[in-house]
Amino acid sequence: MTEFIPPGTRWIDLPSPFPMKRGGDLRDARIAYETWGTPNAAGDNSILILPGLSPDAHAASSPDNPAPGWWEAMLGPGKPIDTDRWHVVCVNALGSCKGSTGPASIDPRSGEPYRLAFPELSVEDAAEAAHAVVRALGIERLACVIGNSMGGMNALALLARHPGIARAHVNISGAARALPFSIAIRSLQREAIRLDPAWNEGNYDDDRYPESGMRMARKLGVITYRSALEWDGRFGRVRLDSDRRDGEDPFGLEFEVESYLEGHARRFVRNFDPNCYLYLSRSMDWYDIGESCGGTTDQGLARIRVEKALAIGVHTDILFPLQQQQQIADGLRAGGAEAHFLPLESPQGHDAFLVDFDRFGPAVSGFLDAL
Amino acid sequence: MTEFIPPGTRWIDLPSPFPMKRGGDLRDARIAYETWGTPNAAGDNSILILPGLSPDAHAASSPDNPAPGWWEAMLGPGKPIDTDRWHVVCVNALGSCKGSTGPASIDPRSGEPYRLAFPELSVEDAAEAAHAVVRALGIERLACVIGNSMGGMNALALLARHPGIARAHVNISGAARALPFSIAIRSLQREAIRLDPAWNEGNYDDDRYPESGMRMARKLGVITYRSALEWDGRFGRVRLDSDRRDGEDPFGLEFEVESYLEGHARRFVRNFDPNCYLYLSRSMDWYDIGESCGGTTDQGLARIRVEKALAIGVHTDILFPLQQQQQIADGLRAGGAEAHFLPLESPQGHDAFLVDFDRFGPAVSGFLDAL
Repeated sequence: MTEFIPPGTRWIDLPSPFPMKRGGDLRDARIAYETWGTPNAAGDNSILILPGLSPDAHAASSPDNPAPGWWEAMLGPGKPIDTDRWHVVCVNALGSCKGSTGPASIDPRSGEPYRLAFPELSVEDAAEAAHAVVRALGIERLACVIGNSMGGMNALALLARHPGIARAHVNISGAARALPFSIAIRSLQREAIRLDPAWNEGNYDDDRYPESGMRMARKLGVITYRSALEWDGRFGRVRLDSDRRDGEDPFGLEFEVESYLEGHARRFVRNFDPNCYLYLSRSMDWYDIGESCGGTTDQGLARIRVEKALAIGVHTDILFPLQQQQQIADGLRAGGAEAHFLPLESPQGHDAFLVDFDRFGPAVSGFLDAL
Repeated sequence: MTEFIPPGTRWIDLPSPFPMKRGGDLRDARIAYETWGTPNAAGDNSILILPGLSPDAHAASSPDNPAPGWWEAMLGPGKPIDTDRWHVVCVNALGSCKGSTGPASIDPRSGEPYRLAFPELSVEDAAEAAHAVVRALGIERLACVIGNSMGGMNALALLARHPGIARAHVNISGAARALPFSIAIRSLQREAIRLDPAWNEGNYDDDRYPESGMRMARKLGVITYRSALEWDGRFGRVRLDSDRRDGEDPFGLEFEVESYLEGHARRFVRNFDPNCYLYLSRSMDWYDIGESCGGTTDQGLARIRVEKALAIGVHTDILFPLQQQQQIADGLRAGGAEAHFLPLESPQGHDAFLVDFDRFGPAVSGFLDAL
């Protein structure tokens, strides 16, 4: 699975054994990360970025890897997350296949990939792993934790479990708990993968790979990551040229939107490990900061101690809808933070933070510049 | 496939050959229907109901079939569609498997089921077939056409192609054209069916049936038929009791919402023909009253001539969103109708007309009572 790992990736070894919240432990596990900028003498300029489900740690280009990263427009010298000022760390989540230990990694106890023998993964485990990276890098206190989507859940878990770890927090299109619509979507994505005979209870390889299941899962993902509003303007009812059509098949690709989904699926399918996808997906379903703390979601949020916080959402997001970022801001404020909720009018739905830099750039830079 | 057809069903033979809009024709085709109430002497009290994709013609109980119908609360003596006053006809759509001729029917030319040899099906074909039923029943002019969801498309096609066929129209959660979000959802549903090896290019039977594909398609349907808002209140994060769980499988059914989807899928899977599903689904993608008339959607709507119209939508509907019913009302008004748009606050999304009778009952009865 080394083909998934971008050049320039570095690693932190996790404590071994690394205990998992829902039982079991990992041996010799490690977390992939990248950094940009330089820590200052006071040690108070470090920002931790926790990404969504699929990105790796390569958020932006660097001397070791000049290829553009997944947040290239947001991160770099003079950019909204200005690396002339900030020392920025981005980690690949525990359980992923982009460098960190996950179900596709070799289990040192068996010498074979974990596959379904990987212990049940929770958002809290990923948070603990991110915390280990922060500590291993000698960072006493972060200036800010920025979490996007799944990373927004990871960030809240990190803040809840390590009071004082960060002065500020930016939660982007995140949630303090999974709600049934998103659980249903993710459940169906997992079912598509598991129904593919090539999944074979997790025992696939490159020659026999659950391509159809992964394609279905990704298409359903893309449908819920974007918005109907964006697609009305972008695709409307435009048809493909006849040379891009599947001949006479009435059920073949005909509309631009169908081709768009197909293109997304093809780019994703061989670039993400199916078992890792299942584990990360389920970890999100299980997350509720309230359940994690033995109280309500609001109570869980109010236990977090940060000085300043910003929860950004998008009104067209159907997967992590706006009221979830409102809840985060309200909860953090109840815990004493100077917390703001910022709803953006982006048409691009849940994925807006990956594309709508005209809105997200000023929102993030405005917050960080005032820190 | 006779097991799909409710007792009490009656049939109208379509003209043979019955030409299809996109090419080809049908021989000896027929349309299943049921009726309630009695035509009056003036012949001006007939209402035609055109249902959504999956329902049969059994909208309500009758002496021939006392089982409750799919719109039992809406249709009957003293009910919103009051059969003491109205003579009501409900048809099963052309292309369905619930009595009308469709891909699961025997092709008289081959003696075998049509399967994928069925000609391409359009919304306009279903409208022509419904028109043939109206004429065969001796109805000169309908008092009203009521179309729900796909039936709302069929109704607009009928009205556009047969000026004067109806005095009034109620369009419920319908659309004058398919938009890319709903095309994407339906495309993915069809892909799930077609990827199931048991689909076998349409050559399945009861022993080898694309059950997984149909289950996936139905679950995705249910997700888009309801709403996140309803599910937040109805399911939240409630777990199944341990005796309803799949043992230790971390990816098995755990949340109530997952079990709800599973139940819906199981009830549907063997009760709808997969090829019929593919054809009906694609016919909706193709529909645009503008393309059908060689103009814009608004122009297509404005060509319709009815005296009164009501377009009802639901603010939580993501499949046929509210602006589509607004467009219908505006378009019909531009054509000279006294047309109203009625947005309802139902939490149940696209399916609200099948469950939220407290809102839909008065909305429909108010319109019909004033006719």
